[in-house]
Amino acid sequence: MMAAWMAHCGINARIVDKRSTKIFSGQADGLQMRSLEIFDSLGFADRAWKEANHMIEICMWNPGEDGVIRRSDRIPDVPVGLSRFQQIVLHQGRIERFFLDNIKKYSKDSIHVERAVLPESLQISEELCGNHSADNYPLTVQLRHLTDDEATPAQSNGSTVRDGLFRSNLAEDDTDDLIAKGREKQGSTEIVRAKYMVGCDGAHSWTRRQLGFKLEGEPTDFIWGVLDIIPITDFPDIRMRCAVHSASSGSLMVIPRENKLVRLYIQLTEIKPDSSGRADRSKITPTTIIEAAQRIIAPYSLTYEYCDWWTAYQIGQRVGTNFDYKDRVFLAGDAVHTHSPKAGQGMNVSMQDAYNLGWKIGLVVKGVAQPSILKTYQSERRRVAQDLIDFDHKFSRLFSGRPAKDVLDETGVSMADFKDAFLKGNLFASGLSVNYGASMLVAKPGDPAAQGDGTDLSSSAKVLSLVAKEDLATAIKLGMRMPSFKVLNQSDARPWHLQERLKSDGRFRLIVFAGNVHAPAQSARLNAFCAQLAASAFLRPYLYAHVAVLTVHAAKRTETELLRDFPDVLHPFSKETGWDYESVFVDDESYHEGFGDAYTNYGVGKETGCVVVTRPDQYVGFVGALDGEAGWEGVDRYFRGVFVG
Amino acid sequence: MMAAWMAHCGINARIVDKRSTKIFSGQADGLQMRSLEIFDSLGFADRAWKEANHMIEICMWNPGEDGVIRRSDRIPDVPVGLSRFQQIVLHQGRIERFFLDNIKKYSKDSIHVERAVLPESLQISEELCGNHSADNYPLTVQLRHLTDDEATPAQSNGSTVRDGLFRSNLAEDDTDDLIAKGREKQGSTEIVRAKYMVGCDGAHSWTRRQLGFKLEGEPTDFIWGVLDIIPITDFPDIRMRCAVHSASSGSLMVIPRENKLVRLYIQLTEIKPDSSGRADRSKITPTTIIEAAQRIIAPYSLTYEYCDWWTAYQIGQRVGTNFDYKDRVFLAGDAVHTHSPKAGQGMNVSMQDAYNLGWKIGLVVKGVAQPSILKTYQSERRRVAQDLIDFDHKFSRLFSGRPAKDVLDETGVSMADFKDAFLKGNLFASGLSVNYGASMLVAKPGDPAAQGDGTDLSSSAKVLSLVAKEDLATAIKLGMRMPSFKVLNQSDARPWHLQERLKSDGRFRLIVFAGNVHAPAQSARLNAFCAQLAASAFLRPYLYAHVAVLTVHAAKRTETELLRDFPDVLHPFSKETGWDYESVFVDDESYHEGFGDAYTNYGVGKETGCVVVTRPDQYVGFVGALDGEAGWEGVDRYFRGVFVG
Repeated sequence: MMAAWMAHCGINARIVDKRSTKIFSGQADGLQMRSLEIFDSLGFADRAWKEANHMIEICMWNPGEDGVIRRSDRIPDVPVGLSRFQQIVLHQGRIERFFLDNIKKYSKDSIHVERAVLPESLQISEELCGNHSADNYPLTVQLRHLTDDEATPAQSNGSTVRDGLFRSNLAEDDTDDLIAKGREKQGSTEIVRAKYMVGCDGAHSWTRRQLGFKLEGEPTDFIWGVLDIIPITDFPDIRMRCAVHSASSGSLMVIPRENKLVRLYIQLTEIKPDSSGRADRSKITPTTIIEAAQRIIAPYSLTYEYCDWWTAYQIGQRVGTNFDYKDRVFLAGDAVHTHSPKAGQGMNVSMQDAYNLGWKIGLVVKGVAQPSILKTYQSERRRVAQDLIDFDHKFSRLFSGRPAKDVLDETGVSMADFKDAFLKGNLFASGLSVNYGASMLVAKPGDPAAQGDGTDLSSSAKVLSLVAKEDLATAIKLGMRMPSFKVLNQSDARPWHLQERLKSDGRFRLIVFAGNVHAPAQSARLNAFCAQLAASAFLRPYLYAHVAVLTVHAAKRTETELLRDFPDVLHPFSKETGWDYESVFVDDESYHEGFGDAYTNYGVGKETGCVVVTRPDQYVGFVGALDGEAGWEGVDRYFRGVFVG
Repeated sequence: MMAAWMAHCGINARIVDKRSTKIFSGQADGLQMRSLEIFDSLGFADRAWKEANHMIEICMWNPGEDGVIRRSDRIPDVPVGLSRFQQIVLHQGRIERFFLDNIKKYSKDSIHVERAVLPESLQISEELCGNHSADNYPLTVQLRHLTDDEATPAQSNGSTVRDGLFRSNLAEDDTDDLIAKGREKQGSTEIVRAKYMVGCDGAHSWTRRQLGFKLEGEPTDFIWGVLDIIPITDFPDIRMRCAVHSASSGSLMVIPRENKLVRLYIQLTEIKPDSSGRADRSKITPTTIIEAAQRIIAPYSLTYEYCDWWTAYQIGQRVGTNFDYKDRVFLAGDAVHTHSPKAGQGMNVSMQDAYNLGWKIGLVVKGVAQPSILKTYQSERRRVAQDLIDFDHKFSRLFSGRPAKDVLDETGVSMADFKDAFLKGNLFASGLSVNYGASMLVAKPGDPAAQGDGTDLSSSAKVLSLVAKEDLATAIKLGMRMPSFKVLNQSDARPWHLQERLKSDGRFRLIVFAGNVHAPAQSARLNAFCAQLAASAFLRPYLYAHVAVLTVHAAKRTETELLRDFPDVLHPFSKETGWDYESVFVDDESYHEGFGDAYTNYGVGKETGCVVVTRPDQYVGFVGALDGEAGWEGVDRYFRGVFVG
């Protein structure tokens, strides 16, 4: 994801991986709605959507009074109406493939994942860190190139079935081993000088260790196994996402996947951590895992002929003490938060860390944005990680607990509580409830430190005096991702989800809700706003290159003309290509795809309109009026807090 | 398209092209709804849909009483509700790319377009033609391999802008030249022995000439130019499909395209054919064409900085006397029908020719289908070509004619007639009104010869005694493509357009509308039908391999169980992969994508149900009851008329 941002922003970057290949099976698989929206903004959600299994419904199976499991409930897998995507499942190898293709395309073949390469030293010039000028490289990293053999971990027991134990938290990290082995050879190192570095190097993060930062939290005694199989079974809901609580044999989760595969998460109640706190992984095999599953799912039968991958892990929740070092070295993903995989959060939240950070680094490297925006990474994402860990702590205990026999059974888990947690959890797990706190990037009232993870953002004080007018757009929430409804291109009547026009190209968007442009008062407001926009000494140089302008009006499409009814700044003219026909949209009925009713759904008045600023990651930074103090002046002040003057 | 079918059917095939490269710009661009449905069945409609410009609305511009053009009407570009696709525009080069990728994938890299190769002799062993047994190759073709230089035609005037004049009907054919040039060299030929051959070699078809078949019809005096430009204009509807009739300067059509391009079809009223009947193409340049456009579109301005491609053509309609020679050599596309390009029919109807033919050849080569089905190619497609020529004849004259000044102006074209023709023409042009006549493949009453192009299909007489019961599915029409509505997979609740399950894999579909399976009478009917299906000595060997079975039931999804409520033959068990979860669907509401209401939309009763047979190209071959004479017996008789016993 970081490399994709660098490619989309045109930044010179390198990416190294100590492993010699991409993932070919197993590992993560669930893609949440927000991740698909992000993929779409990068240009490849359609590939994932087409290949993946789509999860639609969750079935809950619990013991009846006779102790035999039965289906007790069905709920939609994700809340209805939140996004144009739903949750899908596809193995991580394909997702890596989409990223690799996307990076290649957008970097014009200049950024490649360099495999079997790992860092062995990091030096930081403390005095250079504070100076973000162009020719300043505070970081010096020594990279070591491994042979393929060195970089390929052995599989358990010499089996031909791939397993993921070498990446599991039941395994020791092999980074130091790899570095030591590599050092026995000559001439296989190089020195890289860098402005910024991001460690996306997993739970055992070498980068985190160099910085001396910690993961805080505790493991539990719960051990789970994972099997990717083509199941042969008479269990009726094997193609649904299922949560199965047996009376006394533990729990099981069914995740139906692509190509007839099903992933089973199976509680291994017979395996316990030893006195060191870690379970003996030699006792865990596909056979022990499927036998545990058979006990849970009885009286239904469950076997398989084909196993694609398997692993096991010990549940625990930990979060990093720090996500950045002096705005120069950053940590993302498992390097700063680890938890159980069952809520499908690991890959998603990790990608979203990098999605939050990439454009900020991109704009600072280009000299467009003030370096202080980099502080919002920890403030925004460490808070998300803390929320995630709290969610997973609660969720995984409900999942691993024994079902309560009745209301008096206090050590058991109430199945009503479990269902309730699932329903609430679905919104959190979708990634769409993320709400970033006040900063120079989010013109929201309140205390930035309290709304974030406690990080001091005092440098953004001047922006916080901004009066954002959220009541002008009651369904557009500052700090949350811009919701999406269908609008039509004024020039060709084609329907688009507005979000499709918020591509991840590193640009902010100034979205002008022009309202009913045939009302004289509204037209006058629009013209006055556009005159200020076109004349702005500060913002004008950033327009289009770093701030794209989108207009959504609410007059009838067929009574409206692009060239007659909208100031030029909203659809600029080019000598080579004529007028811009791709920036003005209308909230009107389509011939073939219904009516988005965007003004109603966004809560924007057609006789007032408003302006909205979205960040390059689609989160809402500012909402203002077309006129008055919170209008043009607000937009101007927002960007003065972000861009270099 | 033929090569794609061969790849999808696993047939050993070769494809040669006398040109040295694929198309990179210009040529055809419009993709009709039916073509997109076909692309989807092959697996790449999504790529075209994503890259293309979508045409949504047609604007009509006509002279007012003052003689100045103004917008007189807007109509939707395609009829609403007919298909899940609409008309899009994308240049032929991209479409060729999608085909090349698809052929490579499905042929496992064994079929490639062999470029700069052309046939120079064709020998047909007359006595072998009638014997379709496996080791019989009646055709002998000598192929000549050209150098790149030989195969690349010169561009006009040494310009760097690509033009298509060398492919236009204003140019002479160069095939004989190429063959003669190639003969001067040694060792560049090879002999191919073939069972079947299809000439998709254009209006000057070498194959057609070898067979001695003719194109019948006449050219007109109307000459049109084509420009692919990025327009610089104040014409308000430049991103709409427009038909512009000027008072006395001729007509112009606007086709907005991808990447800011617009294609303009421009009537060249000042250029006339000479006494030979052909216009002097040296007089036609991008400058003369844009100047003609400027006269038509005045008082609006129209210029360009970038021209991607241009060409010119003379309007005429011709159709081939024969489409096949002894069921061994076939002609498709421009080789058997030529007409004006403005209705966007050329590429679409030509691809649909091959789409009609490919699976038939595939099944005959495999020894699955009776060779007599090959006769339906000419019967079905020559009739379509005749209808197309009639349509184009009328449409192009309305387009090229001068607008009538008033109702008394009898030599002018009434703009009301023109709009009416456009509305009716849109259904024809969508490709969705094609209605194949009675044959062994379409169990329809009536005279096969009269419903087709006159071809004798008497070998299908035994099938014509079939009593198809169209009243059981009032919106499913014998001979037309199966309509599509959304249904849910019973096993995982995922919504699918039913058409998405009719992939082009060479298989017929037996679609069982099981109705309300909880009604005892309905369940009994279903069970009886399935028992006959499972026990059939004739059809059982073809089941699944050549006839996929899809079930759509109408009980509540959540009250229905796949393994309990449906006979095994509808979801067969495999020792390796368990039960089939991908064949039983339900007409019920979805969580996220509305309600397809398929039974209502198909006109099928929930307390009767029915069975429908679709051909491998999605056309409806048979409709019958679940019980009675037109039930199982009808299905059995249909397939006895098609498959080898």
